[in-house]
Amino acid sequence: MFDIEVAKKEIPFNRESLESTLKSRFFYAPAFEAYGSVAGLFDYGPAGCAFQANVVDQWRKHFILEEDMLEVDCTMLTPYEVLKTSGHVDKFSDWMCKDPKTGEIFRADHLVEEVLESRLKGDQVARGLLSNANEQAAEDAEKKKRKKKVKEIQSVKLEDDVVKEYETVLAKIDGYSGEELGELMVKYDIKNPGTQGDLEPPKAFNLMFETAIGPSGQLKGYLRPETAQGQFLNFNKLLDFNNGKIPFASASIGKSFRNEISPRSGLLRVREFLMAEIEHFVDPEDKSHARFKEVSDLKLKFLPKETQQAGSTKPIEVSIGEAVSTKMVDNETLGYFIARIYLFLIKIGVDPTKLRFRQHMANEMAHYAADCWDAELQTSYGWIECVGCADRSAYDLTVHSKKTGEKMVVRQKLDEPKEIEEWEITLTKKLFGPKFRKDAPKVEQYFNELTQEELASKSEELKNSGKITFKVKGVNNDEDIELDDKFLTIEFVKKIQHVREFIPSVIEPSFGIGRIIYAIFEHSFWARKEDTARTVMSFPPQVAPSKVLLVPLQSNKELSAISADIAKILRKEQIPFKIDDSGASIGKRYSRNDELGTPFGITIDFETIEDGTITLRERDSTIQVRGSVKDVLKAIREITYEGVSWADATKNLKVFASQQDEE
Amino acid sequence: MFDIEVAKKEIPFNRESLESTLKSRFFYAPAFEAYGSVAGLFDYGPAGCAFQANVVDQWRKHFILEEDMLEVDCTMLTPYEVLKTSGHVDKFSDWMCKDPKTGEIFRADHLVEEVLESRLKGDQVARGLLSNANEQAAEDAEKKKRKKKVKEIQSVKLEDDVVKEYETVLAKIDGYSGEELGELMVKYDIKNPGTQGDLEPPKAFNLMFETAIGPSGQLKGYLRPETAQGQFLNFNKLLDFNNGKIPFASASIGKSFRNEISPRSGLLRVREFLMAEIEHFVDPEDKSHARFKEVSDLKLKFLPKETQQAGSTKPIEVSIGEAVSTKMVDNETLGYFIARIYLFLIKIGVDPTKLRFRQHMANEMAHYAADCWDAELQTSYGWIECVGCADRSAYDLTVHSKKTGEKMVVRQKLDEPKEIEEWEITLTKKLFGPKFRKDAPKVEQYFNELTQEELASKSEELKNSGKITFKVKGVNNDEDIELDDKFLTIEFVKKIQHVREFIPSVIEPSFGIGRIIYAIFEHSFWARKEDTARTVMSFPPQVAPSKVLLVPLQSNKELSAISADIAKILRKEQIPFKIDDSGASIGKRYSRNDELGTPFGITIDFETIEDGTITLRERDSTIQVRGSVKDVLKAIREITYEGVSWADATKNLKVFASQQDEE
Repeated sequence: MFDIEVAKKEIPFNRESLESTLKSRFFYAPAFEAYGSVAGLFDYGPAGCAFQANVVDQWRKHFILEEDMLEVDCTMLTPYEVLKTSGHVDKFSDWMCKDPKTGEIFRADHLVEEVLESRLKGDQVARGLLSNANEQAAEDAEKKKRKKKVKEIQSVKLEDDVVKEYETVLAKIDGYSGEELGELMVKYDIKNPGTQGDLEPPKAFNLMFETAIGPSGQLKGYLRPETAQGQFLNFNKLLDFNNGKIPFASASIGKSFRNEISPRSGLLRVREFLMAEIEHFVDPEDKSHARFKEVSDLKLKFLPKETQQAGSTKPIEVSIGEAVSTKMVDNETLGYFIARIYLFLIKIGVDPTKLRFRQHMANEMAHYAADCWDAELQTSYGWIECVGCADRSAYDLTVHSKKTGEKMVVRQKLDEPKEIEEWEITLTKKLFGPKFRKDAPKVEQYFNELTQEELASKSEELKNSGKITFKVKGVNNDEDIELDDKFLTIEFVKKIQHVREFIPSVIEPSFGIGRIIYAIFEHSFWARKEDTARTVMSFPPQVAPSKVLLVPLQSNKELSAISADIAKILRKEQIPFKIDDSGASIGKRYSRNDELGTPFGITIDFETIEDGTITLRERDSTIQVRGSVKDVLKAIREITYEGVSWADATKNLKVFASQQDEE
Repeated sequence: MFDIEVAKKEIPFNRESLESTLKSRFFYAPAFEAYGSVAGLFDYGPAGCAFQANVVDQWRKHFILEEDMLEVDCTMLTPYEVLKTSGHVDKFSDWMCKDPKTGEIFRADHLVEEVLESRLKGDQVARGLLSNANEQAAEDAEKKKRKKKVKEIQSVKLEDDVVKEYETVLAKIDGYSGEELGELMVKYDIKNPGTQGDLEPPKAFNLMFETAIGPSGQLKGYLRPETAQGQFLNFNKLLDFNNGKIPFASASIGKSFRNEISPRSGLLRVREFLMAEIEHFVDPEDKSHARFKEVSDLKLKFLPKETQQAGSTKPIEVSIGEAVSTKMVDNETLGYFIARIYLFLIKIGVDPTKLRFRQHMANEMAHYAADCWDAELQTSYGWIECVGCADRSAYDLTVHSKKTGEKMVVRQKLDEPKEIEEWEITLTKKLFGPKFRKDAPKVEQYFNELTQEELASKSEELKNSGKITFKVKGVNNDEDIELDDKFLTIEFVKKIQHVREFIPSVIEPSFGIGRIIYAIFEHSFWARKEDTARTVMSFPPQVAPSKVLLVPLQSNKELSAISADIAKILRKEQIPFKIDDSGASIGKRYSRNDELGTPFGITIDFETIEDGTITLRERDSTIQVRGSVKDVLKAIREITYEGVSWADATKNLKVFASQQDEE
């Protein structure tokens, strides 16, 4: 039996060769190449676009259809206020440093990293531990697809404790604030590596693309950095659509944007990208999942935060059931999605040995998140975050609700009424109008939004001084307002609750489709040992851009007619195919399609004219079998859409020793 | 037999009722409603999103798969230079007038239209021909979903010739330039209708959203106004992918953007919208189409430009074959796509009686276009352009090629070499370097881009005066340059051509998916005469958001278990379905799903427990039949995915007289 894993290992992976295949078969290309192209923008050609469409189709089936999710399609244009509330206006930034003389702009963390790395290299040269430092640096830069900023390694020995210090800084490089990066730059005298000119201190550069909506130019907007906010803002409508019941999930597939300071690493870091995101709304007091038992035995590779803190990258392999029961993974719903993410990625062609789930460290995680795991895929650029799976708690709904005054809650009838005690405020509304006039609603809203803790403290104030003092934005010029107890009372009262009202938590699996696609390109790529120029993309048939190549043996009327008949059947059955009736040799025609990842080839030859049989060729093994058109198409359909194995699907077809293939 | 067309006519269409259904079933909603929403931005909810996904899926099958088109996915972010070349920076504008006192902004053509219309109304009141002018104006405004700018109709009689003049202006309102609109405003004394304040003259407002790419803010970009430019710029790669052969077509499905001055008419005029565009590249000397005969007998309704110029809106109904042979439609390829557009629209639920093809008038059409037809759909807002089908000639490839210096041509080996005579320029390159230094390539490029006509005239100049005078942008401060005949010769020479090189023409069918979807909403909507509150969306099963509603008769363990089993089969077969096990009556549950357009209902009742049979309900007729799970699901599959009729698919199922339904 042909073993593709063996074949993959025989010729070491070569990124240049992959890139050449991706380019020549137009999977993707830099956008606007005729105009010199723009960093971080890529177009998908026919092969990449079909592959992407198939991945999205599988995603929709695996998640949306399978779990009855509510798909929504929200706008990319997003007004300022929404992203101010979500925190993106203030926090969705990288740090950049400008050279005031040359106008060059550097991303601060990358610059510090590169300069310290180059000094460590220079130290090793000085210590005689490294001879070809410059060559190696060039190679490293190439590996990371970075334009080198540090052009040459200087042989300078460092003190031992300086080496240690640099190494510590590098290990923590992803966690520094802008101020800290600025301090590091001063402390280690980091300048423009090209000119040795001074740099301005790091400034936050917001990564959202800004634009103006409408003709006045006064409504500031952004291109969304994620699809999530649109889903949150439709929560009430979705809850209503779901008859008021939770848990339920919404989902969205669409483009998002990130104005990278200096994009690199091809498809892995781009300015416009396709995302698929799920927002699963769940009771914060019950994060169990009805279907968890279906996946609980699945073994996965985990890199929990403790392992990382101990400086190790060796993953723990346990079942997701165990991971949840030991609390390594916070809850069942999070665990369920981690398992489903795994199953999805494997289905579309990710190599399971190159997939791990890495937990976010405390300092990486948003303050509100309960837990967060990334599905990371190993590529020649290192381990790349391709799917995030976070428990965002009730953060987003809470902030939007608070900002807009629109309640975003679930109401559940309690089986038994419950007695509770709580602070209750009563406003003497008829006094509010005369005192505050048009501002009265604002003041009332201020009181309605007070938390239990705030009410308790205001009650104390009212009791002690007979009045309370407070401020409301936009009222009384933002100055103190005083009200006495004629205006309001605050009491601790007993109440019977019939309905429980709560803001749900959100579990968010978030997929970067382009990154996953690139990782699959690497995982699927190999070269035949007979001829390393003959490369193959071993995509699973389900996601392969085209499923079948029709090859009439020669340019001949009869053969063409049969090929047209088969094409008609394939078209009717909606099996994507291509015909190659060019003059090229059979071997060459198949080779081209191996590079496109087309799993099946059909040859129409002179025997076909006689007895109606055709050959079916399997891409990876190049094995050929022969049978009637009907039987061959049945085999293709079963393997591609019904998950039947090649061996089972072709067991009634005759093995065929080809004379003409593979020349 | 139940006749849906009769049912539709019994209760007149009511847009308010439709909008209420679309809202309550969350087909779509204004985006960011909690934040007060933004005009022209809409989110699709689960029903609308699934409908949209099905329409896109059908589009992909009908066009891309059926015709082997090359789908590409290009970026929305587009650099300035590209859209400058395409003409969008200079011409993609509407005219706006600002009131300098209030800051209000009006779209000039809409303002002129509204003011003149209101004066004509006022004239009719003065003449005693109209009594309730203000009410009617309000109604008209509501119909057009416009905010009324003119608040009140003044009863003022106009001279007869003024009435005539106003009417002429209104008939041509779409064709005025900004300057002309400004002149009309002065001539007719048109001011801010609210304040009677003076307005500034109309200024062009570019409808593209602008943004800055990268951290320096210096790379200006736009959100694309159409997907076409990305396809043109990939022409060479696509031609290569297609082994150098034409005709072939590329296609793209994705969002485009248009910063409307004041959006209105719901989904019909929005700022962010889904487009599906085809660029079919064809030999300008042979625009025949291989599959034209398959559609040539199809009869369609045409509104050619001559009919419109004669002031008529009565369409001509002829076959597309005749339309092409009489040259009413310019060529076969354009005709083929017009027919294919028709077939697509009908398949997804457009009412054929509300569909016509309107030809662009000479003044509407871009100067380079050879012919252009819009598929217009009739809605309560009038006839709406939903698909454009234009022959753009070789314009786009020519301008991009000229701008970037990248040739975008097809090369065809000639069967027989051809002798041609043409002007040829020969540069003495060794003299160019010393004279022009770094500018030499620019000057050489200038000469390489000269057309045959220009070469002929330069040759004349050189012959007469021994030198030529010309300008090159960026060279010699843009001043005149002189060269004598030592630098170049221009001769009329005979040549043998073996290869024909040409820039292909482009036929572009361009679909506004959101507009089509809204028109289908109107065309599919009706109310039951028994109870007009019970509305129905009669989508074709193929595009209906969900296909089946599973309804267990009562809340009961056994019924739920059976319903879960059926759900499992449906999920496996990837037939979208919903379960409604709420306590609501069967009739209510079906009603809700009639509004969602779900074509089939399955009731699981106590008989099911006994004999395994279920009922199948058809949405429009509410007819029910009964049979085994297997037979019922087979019928659903055949009707939904294989185009079998209800009568044929259910002929072996028993008609079922329901007791519980439709209460």
